[in-house]
Amino acid sequence: MPEPQPAAPATTAPGSDAVPAPGRLLTATVQTIQPLDAEAMAQAQARQSRLTKPPGSLGRLEALSVHLAGITGQVCPRLGRKVAFVLAADHGVVRQGVSAYPQEVTAQMVRNFLQGGAAINVLARTVGADVVVADFGVAAILPAHAALRSYRIAPGTQDMSSGPAMTPAQALAAIEAGIRLFHQEHQARRIGLVALGEMGIGNSTSAAAIAAAITGRAAAEVTGPGTGLDAAGVTHKIAVIERALAVNRPDPAKPLDVLAKVGGFEIGGLAGVLLAAAAARVPVLLDGFISTAAALLACGLAPMAREYLIAAHRSAEPGHAVALEHLRLRPLLDLDMRLGEGSGAVLAMPLVEAAARLLAEMATFEEAGVSERTG
Amino acid sequence: MPEPQPAAPATTAPGSDAVPAPGRLLTATVQTIQPLDAEAMAQAQARQSRLTKPPGSLGRLEALSVHLAGITGQVCPRLGRKVAFVLAADHGVVRQGVSAYPQEVTAQMVRNFLQGGAAINVLARTVGADVVVADFGVAAILPAHAALRSYRIAPGTQDMSSGPAMTPAQALAAIEAGIRLFHQEHQARRIGLVALGEMGIGNSTSAAAIAAAITGRAAAEVTGPGTGLDAAGVTHKIAVIERALAVNRPDPAKPLDVLAKVGGFEIGGLAGVLLAAAAARVPVLLDGFISTAAALLACGLAPMAREYLIAAHRSAEPGHAVALEHLRLRPLLDLDMRLGEGSGAVLAMPLVEAAARLLAEMATFEEAGVSERTG
Repeated sequence: MPEPQPAAPATTAPGSDAVPAPGRLLTATVQTIQPLDAEAMAQAQARQSRLTKPPGSLGRLEALSVHLAGITGQVCPRLGRKVAFVLAADHGVVRQGVSAYPQEVTAQMVRNFLQGGAAINVLARTVGADVVVADFGVAAILPAHAALRSYRIAPGTQDMSSGPAMTPAQALAAIEAGIRLFHQEHQARRIGLVALGEMGIGNSTSAAAIAAAITGRAAAEVTGPGTGLDAAGVTHKIAVIERALAVNRPDPAKPLDVLAKVGGFEIGGLAGVLLAAAAARVPVLLDGFISTAAALLACGLAPMAREYLIAAHRSAEPGHAVALEHLRLRPLLDLDMRLGEGSGAVLAMPLVEAAARLLAEMATFEEAGVSERTG
Repeated sequence: MPEPQPAAPATTAPGSDAVPAPGRLLTATVQTIQPLDAEAMAQAQARQSRLTKPPGSLGRLEALSVHLAGITGQVCPRLGRKVAFVLAADHGVVRQGVSAYPQEVTAQMVRNFLQGGAAINVLARTVGADVVVADFGVAAILPAHAALRSYRIAPGTQDMSSGPAMTPAQALAAIEAGIRLFHQEHQARRIGLVALGEMGIGNSTSAAAIAAAITGRAAAEVTGPGTGLDAAGVTHKIAVIERALAVNRPDPAKPLDVLAKVGGFEIGGLAGVLLAAAAARVPVLLDGFISTAAALLACGLAPMAREYLIAAHRSAEPGHAVALEHLRLRPLLDLDMRLGEGSGAVLAMPLVEAAARLLAEMATFEEAGVSERTG
């Protein structure tokens, strides 16, 4: 069995129309993902019951701490660096008028990320996280920048309302590029907690199509205003998604097929980051609807990857609740946010860090000389 | 009109049975509390609409940032030091068997706070907050400790099920001690964000009696398991609270009367910290049921103080939702926590900090050269 090969090139060249080989890097990554560490979880649970507080009084933080022990294999998890991966790409379907903003905003916001002026930058500074910005296929050519990782698959996808968004080879290349991106950053500094973020005008349309394809729900049930369509705009967006699904007929049992037909390069890339993080036993915070659509694909490829996921928040975008329910994930936060960029995921990082540190750093009843309950 | 006098002693000696003078420090503090700064809020709202994100996409963080502008009077609020005030005291009603833990745990947990091993310490370290621990009337005499503030009113309250928990003079002294504690800490370092926390075996019984008295709800509607009573224990606790209310007949229109008859020294102290923070235009994060009971008293004394409050989380203790509803506050977090100590309040600090920093640090569309919406 080959080991995952961080530096390996994608097995097929981006843009190739040939059906790719199964994808050695993807296959190896999926096969590396292990179940949660049951022994670490049992010990963490036992430790929770000895900490100086009434049993259960830390609520969801207690279960989260045990989950983190299972993910990391450490009874007292030390999470290390917090990193937000913000992947950007453009979507051909925008020419159908599915977004309140013009396509050029994708590239403009990438520059905003690099200059530190976007919400994700401010939130990451607030919680002490790094932001990794990667171009997975922005339509405009971005000027080189020391902080910009280039994993371009193509200058935007094709219009999925009249045919596949990308070739099968590009779909595989996007996922494997995400895997390599994670490996590169994990090598540079031990990553302890990942947030998935994205930027791509039109990508809530792609996410809705993926969610409809994978969950079997109607387009109308998973489609919302995105960055701010009015009711007529949402109705039109639903029609465009229905057309994309009818034209392409993605196979829900084949995540690569769904990605190729109605996905996006940044969505494929996020699925790759997620799988690589799970293979490395690093917890992954989902953000909103788009990153959760990537999780639907990743968990289709590797069902065990679900165990490594933490739902950070419930987005105001209606399809998000459907996608979370499909993954059986309950979000930590519910603040009516719907920005993307990884903003909700980064905002939840202190909660995850707190859960881990409570388990590791709180005194036990014995250590602190505190009496246990009498009742 | 006298200015608030931080170093002034309480106007009546603790333990005195004489009805106190109106309380110069309390009166002056209440009169210092001003409405929110409407001009700063209007400017903050206008700035929010120019930041590089779809309008409204940061959800509740946007309204929170405008609220912070109104509290601080700064269009771009810089919050400064985050401080958790953890006030401890004992409750005579514990002899009625209303808690799952023995009274000695109050003092033992104060030592745990001072040694840094409690949940509040770990959470404060995680979010970068200071913890101020103050003795407002623990039954046991605590050894002197450099980090322990002593504002002892008496060694625990009397048993409220057979008479008033404290004298009217003690009630006033507790609140004014809380005011002086805030002033002392605010003088030591500019405080930008306050979390209210407490420790006191039996204090959910006192909080339930206060909530019932102020809101007019039945004891059964606001009484829960506290640190972990079983169903029979809760039934007994309700009966004790009903007896305390019947014996004492607290006047809901007179918060000092409610505090004296069914309150606690740490609860009065928290009301004082809250009022002093509001007078200093510092935002206050409520924690769970006990700190919210203190807020019911404080807002009875100074209705405008409510404008300075942020509900951090919804506790699993059932009376908390009733108290929050009475104050018309919607919590930021809902994580099934029920520990107290200020744990939920501190956990929400990064959200408040994030809201302020997003407003202050995000680039505008113009600054970043990002196109605005077309739709």
